[in-house]
Amino acid sequence: MDFKDVLYGRRAINFFDPGKPVSEALLDEIIGLAAQAPSGFNIQPWSLMVLRDQEEKLRLQKHAWNQFKISAAPVTLIVLADMDGWKTGNPFLEKNFQEMVRAGDMTADQRQWFDGARESLYGASESRKVAFACKNTGFFAMSLMLAAKSIGVDTHPMDGFDMDAVRKEFKIPDHYWIPMLIAVGYFDAAKSLSPAKWRKTVREIQVRFDT
Amino acid sequence: MDFKDVLYGRRAINFFDPGKPVSEALLDEIIGLAAQAPSGFNIQPWSLMVLRDQEEKLRLQKHAWNQFKISAAPVTLIVLADMDGWKTGNPFLEKNFQEMVRAGDMTADQRQWFDGARESLYGASESRKVAFACKNTGFFAMSLMLAAKSIGVDTHPMDGFDMDAVRKEFKIPDHYWIPMLIAVGYFDAAKSLSPAKWRKTVREIQVRFDT
Repeated sequence: MDFKDVLYGRRAINFFDPGKPVSEALLDEIIGLAAQAPSGFNIQPWSLMVLRDQEEKLRLQKHAWNQFKISAAPVTLIVLADMDGWKTGNPFLEKNFQEMVRAGDMTADQRQWFDGARESLYGASESRKVAFACKNTGFFAMSLMLAAKSIGVDTHPMDGFDMDAVRKEFKIPDHYWIPMLIAVGYFDAAKSLSPAKWRKTVREIQVRFDT
Repeated sequence: MDFKDVLYGRRAINFFDPGKPVSEALLDEIIGLAAQAPSGFNIQPWSLMVLRDQEEKLRLQKHAWNQFKISAAPVTLIVLADMDGWKTGNPFLEKNFQEMVRAGDMTADQRQWFDGARESLYGASESRKVAFACKNTGFFAMSLMLAAKSIGVDTHPMDGFDMDAVRKEFKIPDHYWIPMLIAVGYFDAAKSLSPAKWRKTVREIQVRFDT
């Protein structure tokens, strides 16, 4: 599917057809495409909890302003952003360092520099940990929503939920921020889709403060 | 260009051809495509400072580990994430509320609810402000990198810079987080591109803590 058709075709869908499932193979394809997203030092601090079971989705919905799309969609994802993903000892971080050394992008004796760089960029404050986790997971989630659309699957990202209650309900460790939920499925053809929302213009996006 | 070709074709390019410019029209097209990214309540808390002038790029490079690609690329973007974008009075937020009322997505008497929702989701702590700004700006930046690739333009996102020094150098107000810099241009054909880095598998991305 053409990139621009995917980009303009992706819409946050409020009404999912509960009768149209998303197979495990299809979801794997979507996640596998989203996994190509870039991240700082390739740390990939993102994870997904995949909810398919109706009772589980209702337990999530209860903590998410009772948004009906959570249980109407065949799959709802809890998106997790690991605020500790940059830390020494994290298995993906360690694999990454080894791979960079193997590829010649870094030498083993740069390890001390590498540790210090991550500590200062990502670990020097609570805000930096959150920014690291959420920015990179934003890359991943955006890729996931576009990837889904590229194979005809609709999504809806949601901010409206009680993060602490969702954390407790699903036993999510404290080092994960929960930046969003994403409902995944197919638009209910019996409903009508609202027109696309307005966007800032290119000129509105560009700013300068020093001239 | 096909979506999957864009997704797999996008690479963080270390070597830009300084002799191949990116026209203003082309950059506008890229930003206009990226502007289609979704955001919580459509708040779009992202902005860009566009640096083209060599002296300006060198001033940025000085605060960014002297990464040569900043001055070699024809354009380098300072990506800004507005931690106050959700606040009452923000012009884009107010436009958005009016548009939602006009479209029938919200009623004028839901304003109090709307203000409380944004305050609790995005304003209840410093971490929530940063998460709001960086997650949504992550959506925008990912869209921008893919949009660039879809019209043949390469990018490189960078975390390695001194945020406080960049803020001071370019007089960036405190309510913006600076989640990344992005160099924009064309790969230097005289160089060779490293193989794509490893990615987590679909199974590695999926987690559960409660079963």
